[in-house]
Amino acid sequence: MSSPRHVFYISDRTGLTAENIGEALLNQFGNLSFKRHTHPFVDTPEKARAVVEKVNRSRQENGQRPIAFVSVVDDEIRRIIKGADAFQINFFETFLGLLEKELNTEATASEQGHHSIGNTKRYDARMEAVNFSLNHDDGVSDKNLQEADVILMGVSRSGKTPTCLYLALQYGIRAANYPLIPDDLESADLPRMVKPYRDKLFGLTIQPERLQAIRQERRPNSTYAKIDTCRSEVADAQSMFRRHGIPFANTTDKSVEELAVHILQACKLKRRF
Amino acid sequence: MSSPRHVFYISDRTGLTAENIGEALLNQFGNLSFKRHTHPFVDTPEKARAVVEKVNRSRQENGQRPIAFVSVVDDEIRRIIKGADAFQINFFETFLGLLEKELNTEATASEQGHHSIGNTKRYDARMEAVNFSLNHDDGVSDKNLQEADVILMGVSRSGKTPTCLYLALQYGIRAANYPLIPDDLESADLPRMVKPYRDKLFGLTIQPERLQAIRQERRPNSTYAKIDTCRSEVADAQSMFRRHGIPFANTTDKSVEELAVHILQACKLKRRF
Repeated sequence: MSSPRHVFYISDRTGLTAENIGEALLNQFGNLSFKRHTHPFVDTPEKARAVVEKVNRSRQENGQRPIAFVSVVDDEIRRIIKGADAFQINFFETFLGLLEKELNTEATASEQGHHSIGNTKRYDARMEAVNFSLNHDDGVSDKNLQEADVILMGVSRSGKTPTCLYLALQYGIRAANYPLIPDDLESADLPRMVKPYRDKLFGLTIQPERLQAIRQERRPNSTYAKIDTCRSEVADAQSMFRRHGIPFANTTDKSVEELAVHILQACKLKRRF
Repeated sequence: MSSPRHVFYISDRTGLTAENIGEALLNQFGNLSFKRHTHPFVDTPEKARAVVEKVNRSRQENGQRPIAFVSVVDDEIRRIIKGADAFQINFFETFLGLLEKELNTEATASEQGHHSIGNTKRYDARMEAVNFSLNHDDGVSDKNLQEADVILMGVSRSGKTPTCLYLALQYGIRAANYPLIPDDLESADLPRMVKPYRDKLFGLTIQPERLQAIRQERRPNSTYAKIDTCRSEVADAQSMFRRHGIPFANTTDKSVEELAVHILQACKLKRRF
């Protein structure tokens, strides 16, 4: 394998958008390897010049032109970064002019909406959703469960908690979760705690082999981690979902992001920001 | 104000990248209003044609050409979407060809890396980090605190928990948090529990007025929510950070994303994925 190509993410903000685009594109070159350098908050000419120097040094040391994904709003800083000896992909520059024309409006390139009422509202919605999810993790409480936007149901270690927290942080969704224990799985009825909220339920299922590996890590050689236990719990959970017409998804091959978007769509949830 | 311009996010995956770019660009037009429609997982020609129909209907009903941010890997689906009567921004199409040339490699446009070992590793790292953060939320336990990548410190309601969870979910960072209570704030020393981990500490501070509003919401008219209490706690916390040379950030005007990237940078944390 040849030496990895160096990739720079450069932004005067968090750089999350630049990274996001960059990773989506680089993913299309699965047979190449890349070495990533992230430079967020490059918001002064001095910092910009320091980054340019780093890029140029990488160029000299590695003999190959680095790739730079640039997401810079400020004109002066963008101009400085442009001087770096790299193959540059700058989505602001590429698309903003086109959008200005289409919208017949000049971009203001300012920080409106930032550090403002909107930000505070978003913070509050997020905080509330995170607290809600933490307070309703693992079926610990049915208090205010009627305020849940969605209730994730699944056997222990099927991925409920990270998905709930992601929904809360990313979309302000109040996501509770309820673990299906053997007692629940033996009953033909829905668990008492969640029964009143049938329309809010979403099921998570998982490949028994994967579940076994996760449980084995947690409680080695327990009955809980036996493949037979995992198989029967997963089968019972899926029967329950089908019997009660509860939509469900298999978490085995899905990232938390994919699951969250899937749940938003399947349950027609409204984001809070 | 004129009627809002309709915006479509269309993707054969989650659409998170398309949304991310779109929002960053639309943010530059703060004086216009937009109505958003999100269409993730458009992964069959049928679904693609249904979306095209929706876009075209919006065009007719609103008299204005919608804006479409398109992030579609599949060629056939991309071709169908292209037929929609919208102003289209397609970053894959725009940048992939340029990158292919620069890298002298054809993009494979496949799903490598997806549903693979890499995905499982990422899932495990994420799971572990989320569990770690949950187990070390609010200073509940100093067990395994030496395994923390970072320990956030701040007064009650200064934003520690969402930031820790975001760091865990987004970067696989093991982030613990420790609430500074009045007893801690009166002491010249660092709190006993975190003292051994001085190099891992990062402080969060907040504007007293904002803190007061958050606390008032939680425990109305308590001493805890009094502006004087908030002022003195925040002042004491900042003195502690300065006295012990602990880096800190003000959460008042920052989003959780901004805070997280800032902490990554300030503490030189290594992402786990």
